[in-house]
Amino acid sequence: MSDALEQALEAAFAEATRRYKERGFQRRIGFGSKPALISVDLANAWTRPGNPFTCEHVDDQIIPSMQALLKSFRKYDFPVVHVTTCYQITDRKNSNTDMGLWHDKIPVDVVAQSNPELWAIDSRIAPIEGEQLLIKKRASSFHGTYLAGYLRAAGVDTILVTGVTASACVRETICDGLADGFRTIAVKEAIGDRVPGAVLWNLFDIDAKFGDVETTETCLKYLDRIGQAKLASEKLAA
Amino acid sequence: MSDALEQALEAAFAEATRRYKERGFQRRIGFGSKPALISVDLANAWTRPGNPFTCEHVDDQIIPSMQALLKSFRKYDFPVVHVTTCYQITDRKNSNTDMGLWHDKIPVDVVAQSNPELWAIDSRIAPIEGEQLLIKKRASSFHGTYLAGYLRAAGVDTILVTGVTASACVRETICDGLADGFRTIAVKEAIGDRVPGAVLWNLFDIDAKFGDVETTETCLKYLDRIGQAKLASEKLAA
Amino acid sequence: MSDALEQALEAAFAEATRRYKERGFQRRIGFGSKPALISVDLANAWTRPGNPFTCEHVDDQIIPSMQALLKSFRKYDFPVVHVTTCYQITDRKNSNTDMGLWHDKIPVDVVAQSNPELWAIDSRIAPIEGEQLLIKKRASSFHGTYLAGYLRAAGVDTILVTGVTASACVRETICDGLADGFRTIAVKEAIGDRVPGAVLWNLFDIDAKFGDVETTETCLKYLDRIGQAKLASEKLAA
Amino acid sequence: MSDALEQALEAAFAEATRRYKERGFQRRIGFGSKPALISVDLANAWTRPGNPFTCEHVDDQIIPSMQALLKSFRKYDFPVVHVTTCYQITDRKNSNTDMGLWHDKIPVDVVAQSNPELWAIDSRIAPIEGEQLLIKKRASSFHGTYLAGYLRAAGVDTILVTGVTASACVRETICDGLADGFRTIAVKEAIGDRVPGAVLWNLFDIDAKFGDVETTETCLKYLDRIGQAKLASEKLAA
Repeated sequence: MSDALEQALEAAFAEATRRYKERGFQRRIGFGSKPALISVDLANAWTRPGNPFTCEHVDDQIIPSMQALLKSFRKYDFPVVHVTTCYQITDRKNSNTDMGLWHDKIPVDVVAQSNPELWAIDSRIAPIEGEQLLIKKRASSFHGTYLAGYLRAAGVDTILVTGVTASACVRETICDGLADGFRTIAVKEAIGDRVPGAVLWNLFDIDAKFGDVETTETCLKYLDRIGQAKLASEKLAA
Repeated sequence: MSDALEQALEAAFAEATRRYKERGFQRRIGFGSKPALISVDLANAWTRPGNPFTCEHVDDQIIPSMQALLKSFRKYDFPVVHVTTCYQITDRKNSNTDMGLWHDKIPVDVVAQSNPELWAIDSRIAPIEGEQLLIKKRASSFHGTYLAGYLRAAGVDTILVTGVTASACVRETICDGLADGFRTIAVKEAIGDRVPGAVLWNLFDIDAKFGDVETTETCLKYLDRIGQAKLASEKLAA
Repeated sequence: MSDALEQALEAAFAEATRRYKERGFQRRIGFGSKPALISVDLANAWTRPGNPFTCEHVDDQIIPSMQALLKSFRKYDFPVVHVTTCYQITDRKNSNTDMGLWHDKIPVDVVAQSNPELWAIDSRIAPIEGEQLLIKKRASSFHGTYLAGYLRAAGVDTILVTGVTASACVRETICDGLADGFRTIAVKEAIGDRVPGAVLWNLFDIDAKFGDVETTETCLKYLDRIGQAKLASEKLAA
Repeated sequence: MSDALEQALEAAFAEATRRYKERGFQRRIGFGSKPALISVDLANAWTRPGNPFTCEHVDDQIIPSMQALLKSFRKYDFPVVHVTTCYQITDRKNSNTDMGLWHDKIPVDVVAQSNPELWAIDSRIAPIEGEQLLIKKRASSFHGTYLAGYLRAAGVDTILVTGVTASACVRETICDGLADGFRTIAVKEAIGDRVPGAVLWNLFDIDAKFGDVETTETCLKYLDRIGQAKLASEKLAA
């Protein structure tokens, strides 16, 4: 991202923040009592070079943040859902496709279900036993999936959302998560995109209206706090 | 089913029909202009002997009806969706399961995703290329799936619903299909269950309030009519 | 209901129960830790004489049960949602109607939003301040409404469902409630219908697969138990 | 908006467009055969001065565009849905509120259902008979409402979306509309916000991935074309 863009956006955010504060936006939703990690589209088509969906800052930011988060979620046995996207019918001329109309906007036709290598979760952060792999067809991890009902049944009240992209699947997942009644946290370093400025302006909008943007470090501290309490209570019950 | 039950139900339905007609229920929703076939849970755990989910009248009624319907849908190239059900986490003591709470009512824990033989569509009516296989987690084929959005994108306005069971997944699929804006047709011979009377009373409720119960023969005639018109219009366009 | 029907259904239920038990159905979902009362369509068009939607056993069973439940929910300050149904456009020839396609099956066109007397909650169990009135358009109280997201945000994990009818709006609300991750309880005496046998067979299906059918008395005992614990914990916190 | 911001964003969009084109994003979804107008939150709290929700460019851009669109939709009798937002329980300390958790981010607590003046549609573009007023609780006009099912039942395949704000309710409505299977068109001049740059970057993201951004003029030409065809076909049928 150019310095000019960064400076112009920071100036715009400063003015917007002034207005938002005055009017009562940008409130804090806060962390709740049982978190789940919702990791969106960190599959090879998005994390590895050479695909139309390839994103930036995967190796230096997203993967390290995700590895730290996974370590903590696994230590305390909080639910982890790995979300990915693929399609059974990828012929764009076939109106009977599970792509719906999305291929009329973006190249979802490249992610064929018949080629699992493309939509498999990146091996550096691959699911382990007990972690769900959820296949979605649209941007949001909630829309047209069983995610909300499953999280409620599991007693989850807070979702930490990571992955790509800030301007599509991550943002939609956060907006729907809030609408479905979950405290929504966007993990700053673990969210990426593929065009200049898109992470910045989308995280700004999200933090103003739909969820708290927090650093990986803040999230890890929260997980330790709530996780230690969980372990203590389980020890008492045993 | 015992004769006593059948006679008692027929008498109850006669009295109910009298009241419903008087009050304006039991109207006909009718067939629309573009149908899809939604075949619910006709997978081995439901269609073959020896499973808790095994249903009755599969071989003598449901499979023959489905074979006739599939032949017609394929002839005219109308969309077919094969719906099945399975779970990634089937340990009932694990609160973090995609079964949600349903295993607290019925034995969904027997249908593990890791055992595809159980949830594969019955080979006698197996999907062919271009037909979708949709995995659901709950009773309704619409709840927590992309089905409604996909059907709308495909221009479908009518769904013919088949499969098992009348008292659960078929009924829920029909109720949701209507609520989502589709003309809903329950194909009489192609719908089954596993306890006495359940098909009868559920089809009665459906026909009174949620969709038209029609015979396979009536459905085939409709498909021929609308299908021939489609072929003629495609010939003109070519 | 005729004796013959009741006897035939009881015999069918006995045989079905034998099969269901053998196969692992009819499990108990149980009561959770924070209940809400979802009261479905107990509005004048359904509870008072002379409307196509008028139901049976309103005065002698449903209203007394509801009054006892409301007293307890209000005593312990647990959430209550009164659900009703009405439409802005009730001309059946207008394809642009919020009735969707439902008027093609049942006489929803009689419940015009412009006539609030019809869809107002029965005055014997009317909402008080702090209790929501939710207007739905379809059978389920969850489908096309904000109910699931709101209940999740409120920390509710259990819904007690009452109202009419067993064969439509109550059953759909229970099925969707379970699918959305809530423990679902059907309150026996507080659920009605308008044709012979419909309450019996629908409660039987529900109890086998979608929620526990419990008496008002059992529900009141649960509410006292959980409510007293709530009051005690609030006293401690104060 | 400052010149520096506008120039920086235009440069960023140019670079993003280069990448998107190369990778197959920014495709055109196009207009379909039956449109509906979905007008989001053009109610007094958003369109008139002095409210935390007050937006910019209402009088000089949004209202004139909306008036032109309404004239055309009414001339050809295409469906119009006016969407607004309000709440029954606006006490932020009451966990049992239909605001869900949204008041933890933005000041939705100012829009009380008990004060209809706040959430009534702006009188300059008020609903006429036959146009629906839809009350939503979340950002998206689809999430937790009957909108998708109703539009499907009405045979709508294309939605023109207008209103406020670009960064919340309009964007969410467009993303969900596409996911639900509708061709989504964002009407450029009729979409507003309240902080600098937000309209620009949100319309850019939308056009890249979720719907076509089109001018009012282009939309009016489409409406004339499809509307004249409709009138001609109705004349033939009569």
